Order: sequence, then C-alpha cells, then structure tokens
Amino acid sequence: MNQDYIKPDNWSIIEEGFDAERVKSSESLFSIGNGAMGQRANFEETYTGETFQGSYIAGVYYPDKTKVGWWKNGYPEYFAKVLNAPNWIGIDIEINGENLDLNTCKSVSKFRRELNMKEGIYYRSFEAILQNGTEILVNITRFLSLDLDEVGVINYEITPLNSDAKIVFKPYIDAGVTNEDANWEEKFWEIQDLQHNDNEAFVTARTFKTHFVATTFMHNIVSNASESVANLGKDKAQLSYEINAKKDEKTTIQKMGGYTVSLNHTDTIAAAKAVIAKAIQIGYKQLLENQKIAWAKIWEMSDITIDGDVKAQQGIRFNIFQLNQTYLGKDSRLNIGPKGFTGEKYGGSTYWDTEAYCIPFYMATKDQKVARNLLTYRYNQLDKAIENAEKNLGFKNGAALYPMVTMNGEECHNEWEITHEEIHRNGAIAFAIYNYYRFTGDYSYIPEKGLEVLIGIARFWHQRASFSTHKNQYMILGVTGPNEYENNVNNNFYTNYIAKWCIDYAAEQITKVSLEYPSDHKRIIEKVKLSDAELQAWRKVADNMYFPYSEELGIYLQQDGFLDKDLVQVKDLDKSQRPINQKWSWDRVLRSPYIKQADTLQGFYFFEDHFTTEQLEKHFDFYEPFTVHESSLSPCVHSIQAAKLDKMDMAYTFYLRTSRLDLDDYNKEVEEGCHITSMAGTWMSIVEGFGGMRVKNDALHFSPKIPKEWQAYSFKINFRNQILKVTITQNDTQLSLEGTTDITVFVNEKPVLVKS
Amino acid sequence: MNQDYIKPDNWSIIEEGFDAERVKSSESLFSIGNGAMGQRANFEETYTGETFQGSYIAGVYYPDKTKVGWWKNGYPEYFAKVLNAPNWIGIDIEINGENLDLNTCKSVSKFRRELNMKEGIYYRSFEAILQNGTEILVNITRFLSLDLDEVGVINYEITPLNSDAKIVFKPYIDAGVTNEDANWEEKFWEIQDLQHNDNEAFVTARTFKTHFVATTFMHNIVSNASESVANLGKDKAQLSYEINAKKDEKTTIQKMGGYTVSLNHTDTIAAAKAVIAKAIQIGYKQLLENQKIAWAKIWEMSDITIDGDVKAQQGIRFNIFQLNQTYLGKDSRLNIGPKGFTGEKYGGSTYWDTEAYCIPFYMATKDQKVARNLLTYRYNQLDKAIENAEKNLGFKNGAALYPMVTMNGEECHNEWEITHEEIHRNGAIAFAIYNYYRFTGDYSYIPEKGLEVLIGIARFWHQRASFSTHKNQYMILGVTGPNEYENNVNNNFYTNYIAKWCIDYAAEQITKVSLEYPSDHKRIIEKVKLSDAELQAWRKVADNMYFPYSEELGIYLQQDGFLDKDLVQVKDLDKSQRPINQKWSWDRVLRSPYIKQADTLQGFYFFEDHFTTEQLEKHFDFYEPFTVHESSLSPCVHSIQAAKLDKMDMAYTFYLRTSRLDLDDYNKEVEEGCHITSMAGTWMSIVEGFGGMRVKNDALHFSPKIPKEWQAYSFKINFRNQILKVTITQNDTQLSLEGTTDITVFVNEKPVLVKS
Repeated sequence: MNQDYIKPDNWSIIEEGFDAERVKSSESLFSIGNGAMGQRANFEETYTGETFQGSYIAGVYYPDKTKVGWWKNGYPEYFAKVLNAPNWIGIDIEINGENLDLNTCKSVSKFRRELNMKEGIYYRSFEAILQNGTEILVNITRFLSLDLDEVGVINYEITPLNSDAKIVFKPYIDAGVTNEDANWEEKFWEIQDLQHNDNEAFVTARTFKTHFVATTFMHNIVSNASESVANLGKDKAQLSYEINAKKDEKTTIQKMGGYTVSLNHTDTIAAAKAVIAKAIQIGYKQLLENQKIAWAKIWEMSDITIDGDVKAQQGIRFNIFQLNQTYLGKDSRLNIGPKGFTGEKYGGSTYWDTEAYCIPFYMATKDQKVARNLLTYRYNQLDKAIENAEKNLGFKNGAALYPMVTMNGEECHNEWEITHEEIHRNGAIAFAIYNYYRFTGDYSYIPEKGLEVLIGIARFWHQRASFSTHKNQYMILGVTGPNEYENNVNNNFYTNYIAKWCIDYAAEQITKVSLEYPSDHKRIIEKVKLSDAELQAWRKVADNMYFPYSEELGIYLQQDGFLDKDLVQVKDLDKSQRPINQKWSWDRVLRSPYIKQADTLQGFYFFEDHFTTEQLEKHFDFYEPFTVHESSLSPCVHSIQAAKLDKMDMAYTFYLRTSRLDLDDYNKEVEEGCHITSMAGTWMSIVEGFGGMRVKNDALHFSPKIPKEWQAYSFKINFRNQILKVTITQNDTQLSLEGTTDITVFVNEKPVLVKS
Repeated sequence: MNQDYIKPDNWSIIEEGFDAERVKSSESLFSIGNGAMGQRANFEETYTGETFQGSYIAGVYYPDKTKVGWWKNGYPEYFAKVLNAPNWIGIDIEINGENLDLNTCKSVSKFRRELNMKEGIYYRSFEAILQNGTEILVNITRFLSLDLDEVGVINYEITPLNSDAKIVFKPYIDAGVTNEDANWEEKFWEIQDLQHNDNEAFVTARTFKTHFVATTFMHNIVSNASESVANLGKDKAQLSYEINAKKDEKTTIQKMGGYTVSLNHTDTIAAAKAVIAKAIQIGYKQLLENQKIAWAKIWEMSDITIDGDVKAQQGIRFNIFQLNQTYLGKDSRLNIGPKGFTGEKYGGSTYWDTEAYCIPFYMATKDQKVARNLLTYRYNQLDKAIENAEKNLGFKNGAALYPMVTMNGEECHNEWEITHEEIHRNGAIAFAIYNYYRFTGDYSYIPEKGLEVLIGIARFWHQRASFSTHKNQYMILGVTGPNEYENNVNNNFYTNYIAKWCIDYAAEQITKVSLEYPSDHKRIIEKVKLSDAELQAWRKVADNMYFPYSEELGIYLQQDGFLDKDLVQVKDLDKSQRPINQKWSWDRVLRSPYIKQADTLQGFYFFEDHFTTEQLEKHFDFYEPFTVHESSLSPCVHSIQAAKLDKMDMAYTFYLRTSRLDLDDYNKEVEEGCHITSMAGTWMSIVEGFGGMRVKNDALHFSPKIPKEWQAYSFKINFRNQILKVTITQNDTQLSLEGTTDITVFVNEKPVLVKS
C-alpha cells in the first residue's frame, strides 16, 4: 500500500526513473533547506506537468484573512501562512527552438535524483529526446549553502547527444508566485523594484500587510554564451544566453541565487549585491566543498548509525537531515514549522510539537543555547499569550494561553475545538522549561525568564479549572486533548494531569527562586503582582484536581465518557475504513474509541517517574489497541514505551513507521510536504526508546535494548558540554567520551565511569 | 435597552420620524410578502444611506459553494442561499434636476411608515426639502397582491409644496443584485434577456448552477408624463417619465411589478405579459380592494384578539401577519424559512422549526391540507435523507437523516457540531407526523406516506445508538441537543428520549398499518425490505436506552456531564456578560451551564403526558434558571410551561418576549431580518399556554388562564373542519362554533357541549 520507489541507501535518498505521478511526492522528499531558507525539489526547467511549487524564507509569513463558515467569538483575524517566496531557481531552456519540458519530451530516460544527505547536496540527471528529435543529457547539482545561508547554487549542465544544438538558457526570478494554501486567492507579494545587469537580476518585493521586504537575486555564469538579453516583466526578471553547443560537449549554466530579507538588512538590494560578491569570491567549487564540510560537522554530532538494516539507517538519517535543514538554532525569532521548508500545510510555524518533540533532539545534538533559544522564543511571546487568554477567553490577571499555532505569538488557528479547547499545549511549554533544566542543569533560565512563563501558565490553569459541587473537585471541562479525535470532552486525563503539574511546578520554582535568586524573585513578583492569597488559590485547584479513573479496570480514563464508547479495538476494524479521518464523518470519528496519537500515554511519557512500570503497561495495553496512529507524532511515543515494556517487535514496527513515515508515505500525503517535527520523535525513539536514555538527578541513564534486526547502533549525546558516544550491539553497550571531565552514567541502573 | 420606536397600535406597525440609524431595522419590520414572494421595506427612491436591499422569490435559491476553514468529511458542497432577486421596486426620482435621496436632503419631516396588518398594505409618507430648495410631500402605498401572487403594486405620489417642479420618474428593474450573505462574492444571476416598450420592461435572468429563470417585470402608469425614455444597461432596464408638476398638485406613478418564474412557467416572459394584462384589467383600485378582502379572510380564521394590552395585541398580530406573509401552504415545494422574506440569514429555508413550532399554527388556522403539505415536503425528500445518512455518516439500509438546513432535501449546513451532531431534528419530523394525526384525525397520511418516513427515522436511531458494555445500555454519544450551547455531548436526554420514542412509535404504526391497511403495509414493507429480525433489533435499542438521571436531584440530566459544570444561575451572572453568545468565546459558552433554548424541557413539552406535573415543575425549576433564552425559539415553550405551572408572571414575561422579540429587538439583530418560525411559537404560547389547549383522544381540551394584564383574549381553532372560537376573560371561558356538528370539548377536564 505504501510507496516504495525510494531506493534503500545508507546516506542518500535516491529515485530512479521518471514518473509524472511521483513528481509532487519527490518534490517534498528531495527538498533542501539551510535553516534560513528552503525549497521543494521543483525542476529548474519548465515543467507543465503536475507540480507543487514552493520556496520559503524562514520567518517571512503572511497573515491570511481567516476563512470560516460561521464566525465564533475569539477566532483570530488571520491565519499566518508560511509564504511561498519568489522563485529564483527557474531556468527556461530552449534547445533547437523547443522548450525543454519533461512533460512534453518524446522520451525521458535514466532519470535519477539523489539527495546526498552526508553532503547536503541534491543531484538530478536525465536523458531526454525532444519532440524535435534532439537528444540531450542533463546533470544538475543544487544546494543551499550552510555557510552563506542567503545563497543557493545550481550547476546545470546539458550535453547534446545526437547533434550540435542551439541552447538558450533563460534563467529568471519570478515574484508572481502564489500559495497553494491561501484562503482568498489574494496576492501576497507586491513588487517594489526590478533591476538587472548582464548577469544579474534583483527583484525586490514586499509582502502585503506584514511588510517583509525580500530581494530575490540571481547571478549567472554561462560558458561560451554568445549574447545576454534581458526581459523584465511585471514581476519577473529573465535573462537569456544563447550557446551553440557541440555534440557530446557539455554546456553549463551556474546560477547563484537566494534572498536577502528586511528581517536582517535595512537595504536588501545592497545586501544582495554584497552576498553575491562574497559568493563569487568564494567560488562555486569552494562553496561546494564548504557545504560538505559544514554538513560533516553537523553529522559529526547528530548522526545515528544503524548496522545491518539499511532502511532503518536511511530513515533515521533522513529525519536528522530534515531537522537540521529546517532549524539550526541560530536565531531565537525562528522556530520549527511542522512542514519545515517542504510544504505549506498547517500554515503557521510553531506548534506544541516544538516543546514536546523537538527540544530533546536539539538539546542533545547541539549546543544548549539552541534549546534555550527555543525557550526564549516563547518567553518573548509571553505578552501575546497573556493577551490571547484575555482577548479570546476573557481571562484576567496575567493568565497566559500560548497559541496553538503561531508565527509571532498571536493565535492563528480557527477551529474552536482546537484554538479554544486544545489548551494542553500550555502544559508542554511549561514542561519544556523543566526538561531543559533537567537535561542541561542550566537553572539560570528560570529566574531570568522561565519563571514568568510558568506563572502565566499556572494562572491560566487556575482560572480555567472549574469547581463541581457535585463531585467536590476541580474539573477541566470542554477540552481537546492530544487525541484530536475527541473534541470538547470533560476532564481529559492528560490535560488535568499536566495542569496540576504546571501549578505544582510553578509554585515550587517560585519558592526555589525566592531562596536562591532573591533579587530575581522580587523583580518578578513585583512585575506579575503575585500574592500569597493567589498562590493559595492555585494550591486549592492543584490539590483538588479530579482525574477520571476506573476502579474496575485500574486505569485513568482518557476522559469522563471514554468507557461509554463502543470499545471495538483497531484490529477488529475493517481495513477499508482506514484511515478513519479520510473515511469517516467527523462525528463518527469523535464518538469512536479510536485515538489519533498518544494521549493518556503522552502523560505517562512526560511523567514516567510518577507511575510504576506496571501502571504504564496496564495503560499501554488498554489504550494502544484503540490507537490508529494517524498523527505523525504517535508512533514515536509508542515506540519508546513499547521498548521500555520489552515489547521489542512493536517498538521496532513503530520505529520504522515514524522513521520512514514520509519516505514510505504511510499517510498518503507526502506530496503536501514532510512531517518535520515528528522527525525529532524518531530520534527520541532510538535514543530514549531503544537506548533508554533518561536524565535523573543530573546523570544520564541508559537501559539499552536493540531490535533483533540490527547488529548495532550508535548515537551521541551532548550532555552538559561533554559529548558521550553510545554504541549498542547485540552483546554490549560501549560508551566513550569527547570531553575533559570523566562522567558517571548509569547503564541499567548501574553506575559506569566514562573516562575523558 | 431594547428599541421602542414602534408605536403601539392594535392593527398597525407604525414608525414616526426619520432616523437613518433605524433604516435597516425598519426594512425588516415593515417587510411585506404574499407567500410567493416578499421584500424588505427598502425605499423605492434612491437611498445612499445604510440599507440592506432584499427581495426574495419563494423556492428560488442558490447553492453557494461551502466556505470552511478546515474541511471535514461529510460537509455539504454548498449552502443553499435564499437568493436576493432582481429589484423591481426601484424608482429614481429627479426633482428640478436633483436626485431625491433621504440621505442627502436638506431636511426630512413628517416621515411615517405604517404597515397595516389588517389590510396587508404598507404606507410611507414624508415631507422633504431638497438641497435645491424644492419642498415636496410624498405618499407611497405598496403591497404584494395575495390574489395575483406574482404581482406587487406601488402607488408613488409627489406633491411640490413651495413651487412648481419638474419631476422625472425613472422606474427600473435591476438584476445586478448581490447577496449580503454570500461566501465568495460571486454573482448569482446571469442576464438572459432585456426588453421594454413605452411603459413596460422585462428582465429575464437565470441563476447560475440551479438555473432558475425569473422574468422580473414592471408596468408603469404615469399621469401627465410628457415623454418616456428607455435606458437599457447590462443588467438594468430603466424608463424615464418627465412631468411638469404644479405647486400643491399631486403627481403619481403607479408601478406594477413582480416575478414570473420557471418553477411555474415554461415561458416566463409570456407569463409576465399575461399577468400584467390581468393586473391592468383588474386595475389598481380593485387590486387594493381585493388585497383587503383577502387579508380579512386570513384574519377571520387566524386572528387572536387581546383586550386591554395593546402591546401584547400588536405583538401577536405581527407574528400571525408575518407567518401568513411567509407561507400560505398552497405549494408543497415550499416551506417556512427562519427569516421568511425579511432577510438572508440562516440561508436555507427549512429547519426543524417547521415541525417543532410551525405545524401546530398552520394546522389550527388553515385547512388541514396545509399541514399535510408540510409533511409531504419531508416525504418527498426522504430519498435525499437516506442518501444524506449514507453519504455523510456511512449509514446503511435506508436509515434516514433529515438535513439540519435544506432547500431541496440536501444538507446545507457545515459545522460538524450541527450538521453531523444536531440529529434530534430527525425526531421532530417523526413527532410532526404523530402530531398531525393527533390533531386532524387524518390517519390516511401514515399508510400513504408517513410510515416510510417513520421507518427511515427509526432505522437511523437504531444504527446511531451504540452499546456501552460498561453501562449495559444503549448510548447516543456525541450529539448537540436543542441547546446549541453544548456541543458533542453524550446522552442528551432530549435526543435519547425522542430516539426511543421514534422507534416505539414507528413499530406501533407498522403494526397498526398491518392490521388496518394491509395492502399499504405489504407495499411499504416490500419497498423498504423490513424484516422481523430488524424490528427486534430496533426494540432492543429502544427498550434499553439509557437516560442520564440524578437520583439526588430527581431530575433527568440534560446530558451526562451537566452536573459537573459550575452551576451559577443566570440571575447571578453579570449583565455585562450578556448575551453570552456575543460576549464569550465558544468554549466558554460550551462549558458554562447556560442553556440557549428549551432542551430537556423541549422533551417535556413534546411528551407532556409521559410526565407528571410535579416532574415538569421540578425540571422547569431546575433548568429555567440556567436558560438564557438566546434563541428565538426559547421563550414560547417556557411561556407554555410556566402557564401550565401557574407561574403566570413568568408566562406573561415570556409571552411578551416571544411576541415582541423583533418589534422590541431583544436580541439586537432585527436589521438582519425577523424571526419568522419562532412566531408560530408565539401563537402556541397563547393557545397552548394561556388557553391550555391540548388534543387528547380526539377531543379538544382547554385549561384557560389569563394574564392579569389582560381583560380578555380570543382565538379560533379549525378542529377537524369545525371552527371553534374561544374567548377567555378574567371571569369565564366562552366557546362558540362555526360548523355543522356539535362538538364536545373539555374545559379544565370537564366536558362542554358546543352547539353548532
């Protein structure tokens, strides 16, 4: 059922043979990015077949006016959209007067794509016979420079195979782009300036409303071009180079292009000229070399090796590669979009995915500043979160509700069952602060910034809970838990549990900061005007929180009404009904017992040490059989828990599903883009799942397991500025350290000293 | 807080004084209709101030492409919109070269509107001083003929008051109209033909997609016109008449206009010419006379008199008048839209309002064929209801889910919590069949048509219920009850109760038809393929239906989670928070205990005889204090129940609220149109509430009560072709009969013989 055209390979994603039906899928899978920009693997030359054009600039978005059927109070005015940016990769190519277009050629053969993840370089080649009979060989190399992250490079080579040929390269910049995902078919960009010289063009455009200015530029180097003609359209700048190419002789255009943006420059045109100059100075060859070096550095720290299972190896590398293409942690204004630079779906860039799934990966494979930047992103948006709770839910007194989806701190989502009810997201943001301190040992973040966030969140939960006289406890009514296949339920266990935890943790940190950082404490308490009476009121809610529980089954209930459902397990569901979110009406999904992704089990994942392994097993055995895993975020958590429970076959199956979700297109939607944030979950399922890594009392713990399909696997952890390498084979666990201080880690609860 | 500019009057709606702020409200309140067409009280002359232009043709709609933020499976492709039809009332008027426009005149005085409900005629008059200094008096009479229901008439008189004046009348037809309520700013009409002669014009336009063809026509009679000039635009036909009017001398244009539609004619232009000829033959004076006679006939049967309370009198007559303007029961293709011909909101025409609120009014004040036509409307749409259940919910075997909103049997609504979950509507459709037979004694409808509907509905409930092993009963999970302020709740008492009742009633009728109409029984059972095994399966669900109940309180719970809410009564809610649907975010509304309209109490209303008065009181006393009555359908049911419980002050307050909802604009939205369907509830609150009318065992029962504010009130009931007049005073109840057979009615349970 799933696609399997991607060739297994340890380091590359490879497609062989041209299939028009696969073009959009491959455009997603072969996407490239460098943290600052990214693009789908669209063809440079004209392509009149089905394609989804996409090129994106980090941090540049458009507030697309909200589209709903029936307006509800509190809906945001707009949905911030990842914005399709002007196209700089395009090169129209005429060969003996015919436009090269794989959709109209007489034949295409030896078509091959390779995304070399080790090097961060995308290669494409093919042979084609045109309608006019000309036969050509084409070889293309493309990459977005990690070093010079405003620049991308294309090396496009054509060799006529059966005769001499007149080749015209017409590289262009096209700012007349639209979004696939737009509510009102509005234009998002307005042109401010077009200019060119013989080999260069600069198109400066400004987004409507948000007024981001981007200069899209190109610089072309063409061998033996006999003339260069320019053509300036309304929103397109095109140059033209004519070459009389000899049979069997390679003709090349090198196109450098990219964006300079008002986020980083006051004069984007001048900046574009400067960065081109720099790129030319470095030169194509050296840029290519630097690219390999830069990626080698990333892999040096973040690679996971798997021996004896090439599909598993390819999967994990694809995940790690995509995460690094999307976000490198240099800029605290940026975050990790669910589709990264591979598509537009889900619009806004930041979801709770960042805190719940991505931070552990970035903490362990990068400098801890990167994770701190991700926390700071939320700190910087605290005011907006307070405004959001006030404006949309009528909350007071500094209660903060972080948005479900955001680009700039403002809520972008507009389904009431998500926007207003999927409030557990607030919990993950607090949890990430705890998790950051647990992992890095860097407490300074809490008195400096984190405590204010924790207070805003605790205030939210305090106000959001309501008292039931009937039950004599506090309820959280009308929520959507992580399982979005239930809406507007009462007392979602996960939500209630994390709400109580947030209050407890905030209260603890207030005390700790008051003792250890008295001046920060004074500053914060004055700023947020927190009284003892309010703290007491928080306590009352946290201490009397209700959790739905079945005495009969000995399990916490996902929500009050869960046992009233018709409890038919997934295995007994006809396959023709799957995926239920595509086959069933929404009400049917909602009243079914089927779970989209870990919900109660997400709580057991975050708060593992609050429960016994027996409890975990009981809950896992109850809930997993109802779980359809139709969220990309589902298999990883289940893989981790299955590994812990020694259900290694399940753990392995879940691992493959999370790691090859896009490569094998489990959910039949990869053409819309890749699932970037869940890729961090894939990393977790190896490191925390099979490796059993935990941090307890400032020490790393491992409970290593290995799937029977593997000979060995290894990963590295940057733990408090020491790099620990862990290699696990079928027989043993090897630990080695790149660092200056010996550390003691625990393997299966036994201390092991690792020498530096 | 409410508006109070409408002058109290027994028979008329009167506005005095021109206030631009009130124009849109008055356009709704002074709307006129004749069952076949209707229009808002827009000015004939140019008006550049704020206005909401609306003219509507019964049965002519447009399938406006669905607009949602996030598509869910099962959403309908379109929302059928009541369609703003070409404007035929317009008359641009030039006076001494200046365009008459109340928005730009130097002054407007003696502005007066009167909607004479007794006659069905709308009058407007004013004096104005134009910028050029000309002073004029204007008198306009307008009505839509009940006799010739394709024709409306305007008599527009101008008298120059301070000098002679050159007056140019420029009557027009404008098909370049749009809907206020449109999703995509698309045009709904395309012009097919424009033609004119000296005094007439015909604009034929066709709706896109639905291909309704309407010829909009006008015929003008102008006294002393010196010339007639025509001007044909793209979608506008305008004639022009110039008159040199003398000071103090009246100049008149009579404009007849209207629509002939492809629903009724194959050649709409020929039909328009024929109907004009007929109207001219009858003549303006006689048309006016006939209008008064026709309305007198309607009032003869449906009037309710109230002595001693002019506001109450005006209120009830406004309600009865609007109902008769909207629907006269001649055509089983038509139904009763929630805004009638007074606005566009709520789009589609048919809601469960028809069965739950309107049928009793039409049954008692018209020939019983009218109610039968309303039932037949649903019978004719049974196939679509089966398709709806199949396509949208995946149901099988002839289960029928009637749409929430429809024009043609197809669902038009697209919020999952309504479309897919507010399924109780199916119950009201079955209840109406029961109610029709109970009231009219005409059983023939059931074997002929009704039984098939009942079976389709019973099948729906059977399939929709699910078994809870945990509770060992059948549940109906994930519904929205009549209280739309709770969504996706489990076991809404009203829904579960009516579901069980539907199955019980369908099973009973199958038995009865098998005994009394064996050939119909055979035909139907063969057609729907109903087996005994299936009937057994229905029984199992009906007999084991779960109803949420609190032993502690002795009440049925509105839904499983109701008691978990923070139960603060409406009286303790700050007034600044009202109406909550305008002040609160949707999640806050949902988790609050506040009830939009009778929900559990709606069940007690329908199935009154299943419960004791003590039970009713207990439930009323529990639920009413949480009810915000933010639906127009709420006060009437509460008024009826309060009257029954001898809470006459409450009953009276609710009565005023329902009867003057629009006149006094309780909900601050009358400018969008009037609440037509709830007006039938107003009728019920007098007849069933104060009058205590019920039908039991084929006899009328009354338990008369009278508000202390009233001296007397009276109404008539067409009971099985005998007209019973009931007059209730503070001292007694008088009954009289227009009919041929004596009947026995029960007054306070005592039999009374009423002689013919």
